[in-house]
Amino acid sequence: MTSIGIVGTGVAGLHLALMLQQHHVSVTMYTDRTPDQVASGRLPNTVMHHYGTRERERELGVDHWPLADAGWWTRYHSVLGNPGIDYRGNFDDASTAVDYRLYLPRLEQDFCARGGEVQVGRIDLAGLEALSGRHDLIVVATGRGPLAEMFGRREDLSPHTAPQRICLAGLFTGVDRPAPEGVSINVSRGVGELIEFPIVSAQGKVTGLLFEAMPGGVLEVLARTKYDEDPGTFDKLVLGALEQHFPRVFARVRAGEFGLLGPTDLLQGGVTPTVRNDYVQLGSGRFALAIGDCHAAVDPVMGQGANAASYSAFVAGRAILEDVALDEMFCQRVAAQRAEVVQGATQVTNMYLEFPEHLRTLQAACVRNQTVSDAVAAAFASPDKLWRIVKTPERVDAFIRRIEQL
Amino acid sequence: MTSIGIVGTGVAGLHLALMLQQHHVSVTMYTDRTPDQVASGRLPNTVMHHYGTRERERELGVDHWPLADAGWWTRYHSVLGNPGIDYRGNFDDASTAVDYRLYLPRLEQDFCARGGEVQVGRIDLAGLEALSGRHDLIVVATGRGPLAEMFGRREDLSPHTAPQRICLAGLFTGVDRPAPEGVSINVSRGVGELIEFPIVSAQGKVTGLLFEAMPGGVLEVLARTKYDEDPGTFDKLVLGALEQHFPRVFARVRAGEFGLLGPTDLLQGGVTPTVRNDYVQLGSGRFALAIGDCHAAVDPVMGQGANAASYSAFVAGRAILEDVALDEMFCQRVAAQRAEVVQGATQVTNMYLEFPEHLRTLQAACVRNQTVSDAVAAAFASPDKLWRIVKTPERVDAFIRRIEQL
Repeated sequence: MTSIGIVGTGVAGLHLALMLQQHHVSVTMYTDRTPDQVASGRLPNTVMHHYGTRERERELGVDHWPLADAGWWTRYHSVLGNPGIDYRGNFDDASTAVDYRLYLPRLEQDFCARGGEVQVGRIDLAGLEALSGRHDLIVVATGRGPLAEMFGRREDLSPHTAPQRICLAGLFTGVDRPAPEGVSINVSRGVGELIEFPIVSAQGKVTGLLFEAMPGGVLEVLARTKYDEDPGTFDKLVLGALEQHFPRVFARVRAGEFGLLGPTDLLQGGVTPTVRNDYVQLGSGRFALAIGDCHAAVDPVMGQGANAASYSAFVAGRAILEDVALDEMFCQRVAAQRAEVVQGATQVTNMYLEFPEHLRTLQAACVRNQTVSDAVAAAFASPDKLWRIVKTPERVDAFIRRIEQL
Repeated sequence: MTSIGIVGTGVAGLHLALMLQQHHVSVTMYTDRTPDQVASGRLPNTVMHHYGTRERERELGVDHWPLADAGWWTRYHSVLGNPGIDYRGNFDDASTAVDYRLYLPRLEQDFCARGGEVQVGRIDLAGLEALSGRHDLIVVATGRGPLAEMFGRREDLSPHTAPQRICLAGLFTGVDRPAPEGVSINVSRGVGELIEFPIVSAQGKVTGLLFEAMPGGVLEVLARTKYDEDPGTFDKLVLGALEQHFPRVFARVRAGEFGLLGPTDLLQGGVTPTVRNDYVQLGSGRFALAIGDCHAAVDPVMGQGANAASYSAFVAGRAILEDVALDEMFCQRVAAQRAEVVQGATQVTNMYLEFPEHLRTLQAACVRNQTVSDAVAAAFASPDKLWRIVKTPERVDAFIRRIEQL
C-alpha cells in the first residue's frame, strides 16, 4: 500500500494530508511545532484565501469560518496623487482571511480526529533520507526553511536575489472597515503599498495591515522598528505612515483606539521571490517533491502564496491517486500540471511589484469601465488567468478591447 | 472579433471548426478536396474512435452512428505460438469505427448546414502566409502533407526516420464477426500484426483488416501487391496470410465469400512516426498552430492517431475560447496542455511496435487476471494513462501488483 510522508504542517502540507486521508491513502505528517506552539506563537503571515482554495476547503470539510464573518467580495484600489486614482472591483466568489494561528491548528486537529498521525520533531537532511526509507514519497512542505535549499533555485524563474519589499504585517484595532467589506490596495508611488483586509483572529474580526516598503524608501523604517521596545511609539509611527501615504485608510482610523492588537501580532521582514526545482531524488532512490513556499515563494503583496500552495497540494494529491508509481515520471507530471498556476502566481506578482506602463493602462481601463475592473478583480483568484491578461502590453490592450467592444 | 482559419478538413480540423462554431467564434475552413471527392475517393485510413473522441462527438452533436451498429466493448488479443497466447479485455465505454469517406463529408455537411464556410482550393506555403493576413490564427490540420514540414521535426520525440511497419489496410467481406463484437489484435512474432475490427462503410458493416508488416518480413508483400492488376490473386494472397499467421481470424473466414470490398477500399504504405513543433510564427507576425497528424503522426497499430488529433483540436479550441490573444504564449499553452496525451500516444505506440520484455510481463498478467486485462483494454482510450502503466518495467510491476493485491 502506498505510504506518503509529508514534512511540514502549513497549508500545503495540511491540504495534501487531508485530501489523501479522504481517499484512504496512508499518510504521516512530520513537524517541528505542536499545534499549541503554532497557536500561541507570533503571527506567521497574512494570508488570503481566494476562490479555488475555498473550494478545496469545502471539499476537505474544513471550511469552519462562515463567509459572513471571514469573507469579502470587493477589492478597493487607491493610488496616492493629485489627482489620485480610485476604483473598485467586485467579484462573486468570496475571498477570506483567517489568522493562521487559528487555521493551521484547527486543520491539524481535523486531520488527527480523522485518524491521521503527526510526528513532532526536527527533520534535517539526514532525517529526510531516513524517512525516505519508510515512505514511497516524501513531500517537503516546510516553507522557506533550510530544507527548501535542497531543491535548488531555478534561475530562469527567479529574477531577484533580494526581497523587493521590506514588510510589516500586523493585526490592528481601531480601523473602521469599509462598506461593503473588502480588501483595499493602496499605492504610494516610489514608497510602497499597503494592503488592508479583514481577518478573523482569536480576538474576533480585526484589521490586517500589510505594509510593503520599497527597500531604501521612507517606509522601510516600519519593518525595522521594534514594537516591544516602545509600543506607543510604534503605533504612532504606523499611524503617521497611514496619514501621510495611505489617506484612504487613515480616513477610517479611530485615532484614539488605533494600535497593534498585541505584541505577537506582527511580522517584519521580506521574501526573496524564488522558484525552486520541483523535486530531487534522495539517496534511497525515492523522490522528494516540493510543494508550497518550499517550491515557489512569492512576495505577499498579491495574496497568492497560500493559494498556489493549496493548488499545488491538490495537483500532487490527485497525481498520487492516479498514478501507478511515485518515480521521476510522477514528479515530472506534477511539475507540468502545476506549472501554469504556480508560475503564473510568481510572474504576475513580480510584475505587479515593478508595475510597468501597461499595468497603468489596465488601471486606467478599470477606472473608466466597471466590467474591466470586475474582471481583473475576479482574476486575482486565478493567477494563470491574470498572467494571461497582463503578460504583454498587447494582451492588456486586447483584453480591454474585448470587454469595451461588447 | 476573433477569426480563425483552419486548413484541412480531416477529423482534427472538423472537430475544432465545429467546436468553435458552437461557441460563435468566426471560423473558415480551407481544403483542396470537396466532400464528394472525399466520399468517392480511396480509403483514406482505418480509424477507431475511443471514449474521449466519442464524448467530443456527442458534445458536437455529430454522433450520427448508433453504437448498436458501430460500437464494440471488447479487445481480443492473440499471439501465434505453441502454446499461443490468448486473452481478452472488456471495457464499458465503447469504441467505434466509421469509414472516413462517410464520416468526414457528413461532419463537413454539419459544419456548413450550421452556417460554416469552407473554401476549396490548394493552399501552399505562400497561400498560408496570405491567409494569415485574414485570420488571427491559422490552424494547420492537413495531415502528413507538405505543409506539415514547415513545423520542423522534434528529434527528441521522433526516434525513427522510416516507417516501422509497412501496412495494408482494407475493407473485406466474408469474415464472420466475433461474439461479442470487438477489435482483435493478432501478433505473429517477427512477422507483424493484424488488427481486425468492425467498420461502418457505405456498404454497411464490414470487416476492416489492417496488416502491419515488419519491413523486410514475409508480410511486406501484402503492401507491395497491387489489387487492380489481379483482384483474385490479391484476395488469395491475403487469405493465405490469414491462414498462416493469423489463424484466429482465419477461423472466422467464409472462404468462398472472402475478398476486398472494392478496388478503392484499400490503402497501402507506412507512416514514419514523427512529432513536429507545435507552432511557427508566420511572416505576418501571427502564428500557425499544428494539430493532428501534421503535429504528431503515429503508426496506426494502436488506433491512437485520430483520437489524439480530436483531443488536440479540443485543447486548441478551449484555449482559443479562454485566451486574450493568439500569440506565442497561447501556442505554448496549447503545447503544454496537450503534451501528455499527444506524446503519450506517440510513445506508447512506438513502444508497442518494439514490444520490450516488460510488455510481455504485462501480457502474461492479462492472461492470468481478467481485472488487469480489462484495465489495460480500457486504458487504450487514454494513451497518457497507458503510458503511465507501461513506461518502465517497474511501473508495469507496480500496476500488476496493485490490482493483484486488491
